Amino acid sequence: MSTYFNRLNEAVRRNNSRLCIGLDPDPALMATPDVARFNQAIIEATADLACAYKPNLAFYESLGRPGMEILAQTLQAIPPEVPVIADAKRGDIGNSSAAYARAIFDELDFDAVTVSPYLGRDSIEPFLAYHDRGVYVLCRTSNPGARDFQDLVVAGNGQRPLYEVVALEATSWSDNVGLVVGATFPEEARRIRELCPQTPFLVPGVGTQGGALPRAVEAAAAGGGQFIINVARQILYSSRVPEAFAEAARRVALAYRDEINACLQAAGQAG
Amino acid sequence: MSTYFNRLNEAVRRNNSRLCIGLDPDPALMATPDVARFNQAIIEATADLACAYKPNLAFYESLGRPGMEILAQTLQAIPPEVPVIADAKRGDIGNSSAAYARAIFDELDFDAVTVSPYLGRDSIEPFLAYHDRGVYVLCRTSNPGARDFQDLVVAGNGQRPLYEVVALEATSWSDNVGLVVGATFPEEARRIRELCPQTPFLVPGVGTQGGALPRAVEAAAAGGGQFIINVARQILYSSRVPEAFAEAARRVALAYRDEINACLQAAGQAG
Repeated sequence: MSTYFNRLNEAVRRNNSRLCIGLDPDPALMATPDVARFNQAIIEATADLACAYKPNLAFYESLGRPGMEILAQTLQAIPPEVPVIADAKRGDIGNSSAAYARAIFDELDFDAVTVSPYLGRDSIEPFLAYHDRGVYVLCRTSNPGARDFQDLVVAGNGQRPLYEVVALEATSWSDNVGLVVGATFPEEARRIRELCPQTPFLVPGVGTQGGALPRAVEAAAAGGGQFIINVARQILYSSRVPEAFAEAARRVALAYRDEINACLQAAGQAG
Repeated sequence: MSTYFNRLNEAVRRNNSRLCIGLDPDPALMATPDVARFNQAIIEATADLACAYKPNLAFYESLGRPGMEILAQTLQAIPPEVPVIADAKRGDIGNSSAAYARAIFDELDFDAVTVSPYLGRDSIEPFLAYHDRGVYVLCRTSNPGARDFQDLVVAGNGQRPLYEVVALEATSWSDNVGLVVGATFPEEARRIRELCPQTPFLVPGVGTQGGALPRAVEAAAAGGGQFIINVARQILYSSRVPEAFAEAARRVALAYRDEINACLQAAGQAG
């Protein structure tokens, strides 16, 4: 069975794309009130432009009782050759993390998941045990509060910030580990790439959050590093016209895909 | 409207109990295959002995499609005067955390939640904004991997381990913050209590995980500190006989409630 990162790389090649589309439906911003239909329209309009989709589970849980059914319908609409990442940021003691892993990999059949490192290795091992799936560990996130704890300098050996310790530790656990590295902090991304040249990055924070694409791509791609760039709101909500939002989403997705590839070319790392 | 910690203290007084019962249904261990009925029987048998219930969402998500309906039925079975904590360990960038907060506080109407601090203050603020609810921030967890990152010593000012920095930071954010402090590391719990004398603790790790009750109570109760002790598996799975499990759960819950109170007395902090 091929591993997740192999499947992801095939999708990158097939669609010539490192664009991951975040499926984070917010009814207050959507062009149509039917979330499942909205997602299906977005997927149909963009499936040949994305290397992956990433539903953030928060947005489905916030829909209440119908949320899980809408998530299931959304997952069904994604072509099987495009990997799907559960943006879940889970992390709990061993037997609870094992239950989360069953929920995400067995019940929902996601290809990969995001997890939080605060509880340490045994909180992430139940996810890693699914060898054919990918596990993206939060390392340096894209939000302003990333500075609060992730930047704290750890005493001793190297005086590294916590996010670097997490990067080094987590990538030593298994070869199905990737790292979440926000586009809003390109200097930190560059450092993580130096420490972990072989590790696939999932890069959020471009677009609404303000991360600049050229610097993010340059940092993530350095030395031929593997990465995908997530964009959600700017694609999903580029138009509020019910008859036009899917086409508008396609135009924005195409522009992002091409801009990422242009940045890669400019960074001298294309192909 | 009274705050969460006031409601919790009323429940502590009413039932003379600091026992929180973890509702973590694992079909492989349950005396009956019907999860909702199992939980209802446990709640009926223990509602006068518990100061709170704490369903860990992992176990409901792992049940697949019926999981959220079973969770809703479980919540309905809990008497309104007993607070309910969503053990969710969520934490995401601002707008995603806001969606999780809506899911947990608006859709499911929990009284409190557990959250993970790795993404910093802005990832927790959407939960704190619900002033009448409680927000327990993971500080020193009860699992072996707690050592991996939480114990790292932060350079500069005080050379504190990360969990102490989290304790000091998180409790400065709002007065509806509590801390998750595992029973398996009583020395660390004692330190956190010294730093945060007024902060309510949620203490997991007693029972199956091996935390010793007297030392955990002594640490959490020092100086009159507020705390509740969570027990799940030892109560839920004390009998596998369908006709007897609820009564058995009541006996074990009663024994825990009384032992916690005896430890409190022995520590000179009763009443």
